[in-house]
Amino acid sequence: MNKDIMQVNELKYDTVIIGAGVSGFAAAMYAGRFQMKTLVIGETPGGTIILTDTVENYPGFKKLTGMELAEKIKEHALEYGVELIEDKVTDVGKRDEGCFIVRTAKESFHTKTVIFATGTELRKLGVPGEKKFTNKGVHYCALCDGFFYKDRVIGVVGGSDSAAKEALLLTQYGKKVYIIYRGKKIHPEPINMKRVEENPKIEVINNTNIVEIKGKDKVESVVFDRPYNGKEEFPIDAVFIEIGHIPLSKLAVDMGVETNGKGEIKIDREAKTSVPGVFAAGDVVDTPFKQAITGVAEGVTAAYSAYQHIQEKV
Amino acid sequence: MNKDIMQVNELKYDTVIIGAGVSGFAAAMYAGRFQMKTLVIGETPGGTIILTDTVENYPGFKKLTGMELAEKIKEHALEYGVELIEDKVTDVGKRDEGCFIVRTAKESFHTKTVIFATGTELRKLGVPGEKKFTNKGVHYCALCDGFFYKDRVIGVVGGSDSAAKEALLLTQYGKKVYIIYRGKKIHPEPINMKRVEENPKIEVINNTNIVEIKGKDKVESVVFDRPYNGKEEFPIDAVFIEIGHIPLSKLAVDMGVETNGKGEIKIDREAKTSVPGVFAAGDVVDTPFKQAITGVAEGVTAAYSAYQHIQEKV
Repeated sequence: MNKDIMQVNELKYDTVIIGAGVSGFAAAMYAGRFQMKTLVIGETPGGTIILTDTVENYPGFKKLTGMELAEKIKEHALEYGVELIEDKVTDVGKRDEGCFIVRTAKESFHTKTVIFATGTELRKLGVPGEKKFTNKGVHYCALCDGFFYKDRVIGVVGGSDSAAKEALLLTQYGKKVYIIYRGKKIHPEPINMKRVEENPKIEVINNTNIVEIKGKDKVESVVFDRPYNGKEEFPIDAVFIEIGHIPLSKLAVDMGVETNGKGEIKIDREAKTSVPGVFAAGDVVDTPFKQAITGVAEGVTAAYSAYQHIQEKV
Repeated sequence: MNKDIMQVNELKYDTVIIGAGVSGFAAAMYAGRFQMKTLVIGETPGGTIILTDTVENYPGFKKLTGMELAEKIKEHALEYGVELIEDKVTDVGKRDEGCFIVRTAKESFHTKTVIFATGTELRKLGVPGEKKFTNKGVHYCALCDGFFYKDRVIGVVGGSDSAAKEALLLTQYGKKVYIIYRGKKIHPEPINMKRVEENPKIEVINNTNIVEIKGKDKVESVVFDRPYNGKEEFPIDAVFIEIGHIPLSKLAVDMGVETNGKGEIKIDREAKTSVPGVFAAGDVVDTPFKQAITGVAEGVTAAYSAYQHIQEKV
């Protein structure tokens, strides 16, 4: 028996939004306002911003946690009667002209348009010991796990603004925080560079790679590819890895949506992808400067373009 | 004596943002975070959104007034030490490579980059009586002036979402509100169309132009180009005109920035205009779907691009 026919959810949606981060929920809020029958499917409501301790650059809110911002935008969307399913999308297919099928392991949903707001996943370091000590000294979220390293020595791997912010947050717990960066000089936003430089607990080690993470039951040291203060093996209690993100564009690629060299979904200023009826927004797209506010605006634009797409077809 | 030399404010700015609406202040907030020396010059802090009674589509805030939203984003920007001058910019010139001069009637400011966030002005109807009765029955802002027409008969001219929202707001005051639209059918957002249709105080008159506004000391009637209910002259106490906006791009055009057929400043996805070092954001640009949130995101992007521009030049 045909799986699609058997399992198909007969309800037809105007739009299915894949991803339940701030971009997805912003798209959902507008779609709801446009009176579109709207479904959001995502594994982690809130998305990656919930890993962020302090958001102070979403215009209108001087300071709040990533969790609070995500919650506000989610609540805002649910105000307009959009549906939310907490699940993983396994496949997106094109059934016929103007109809897509979005599948989870349990159900299938027919929809006139699709909005990808699938975000990114954390990039791994890929060195011996990383996997073995994950959650035993190797971590990817200072806000989640920093607390366990009170008065300990902590390393943060990376040179970006996010790495600097993780390090700054970790100074609340650790007695010493090393930023370990493979490049010439870390490059956070100037305001965070200043904070790093002024923080006596932070020391920056540039031009250095970690080649191994060592320990017995938990992390005890890291091995550098060049000596620092005369030592190649450096004692440390925890390593927080903050070396960027990989765009989660596989579902889109599999249905024929174009991506760029980084695997980001290519969109235009109207959040249109290369496939008519398919739109995208947020961290997964090819916008050079990615912020919560720009992803949210892309979500809004994607909802409008999806609405227009349906209007033009009817 | 050379006016520039005499009056020049010797302070050099990294960026001068022209326009003090939400897009301008969002740009300023990010520029401030980038540690850029930032000046905002605008005549009306808050911009046109302060004329809006209810904003319920800025993701994160379920409902607030336009004034409240503008105030929040302004306060957010001022947190980062940006300067604000409430004045009218009279001219923007290019002094030499990498230096612009922004002039008001009183002062001149040297800056490395310029961000236009100049917004729009209200479009006039251009019929006899409009000018004569302005503020005597002819109005452009329901929130500002609707209060004066308690239990009176009010007309709203226009067919857009803004026109529908003005009409809905005016039903709080008037006993009857006519939406008068020259086109075939008014076209607000579906949610507002529904509200219009369900409101017993509102009546929509499509396919009709006002050709004259008449009265003695104040508006008493309007003349239609075709009879409605058998009458061409229609008794009415007030006319609220909501027929769109004209982009305020003249300063930009005068310095060589490209605009489109509507007079909107052409930008790319990085908020760059055709002139290096000049960026633009908000209602004045050529984005098809203009919302507070999209203008704010453009402001943020413009600030980032201005920051990058300076980094690359140094």
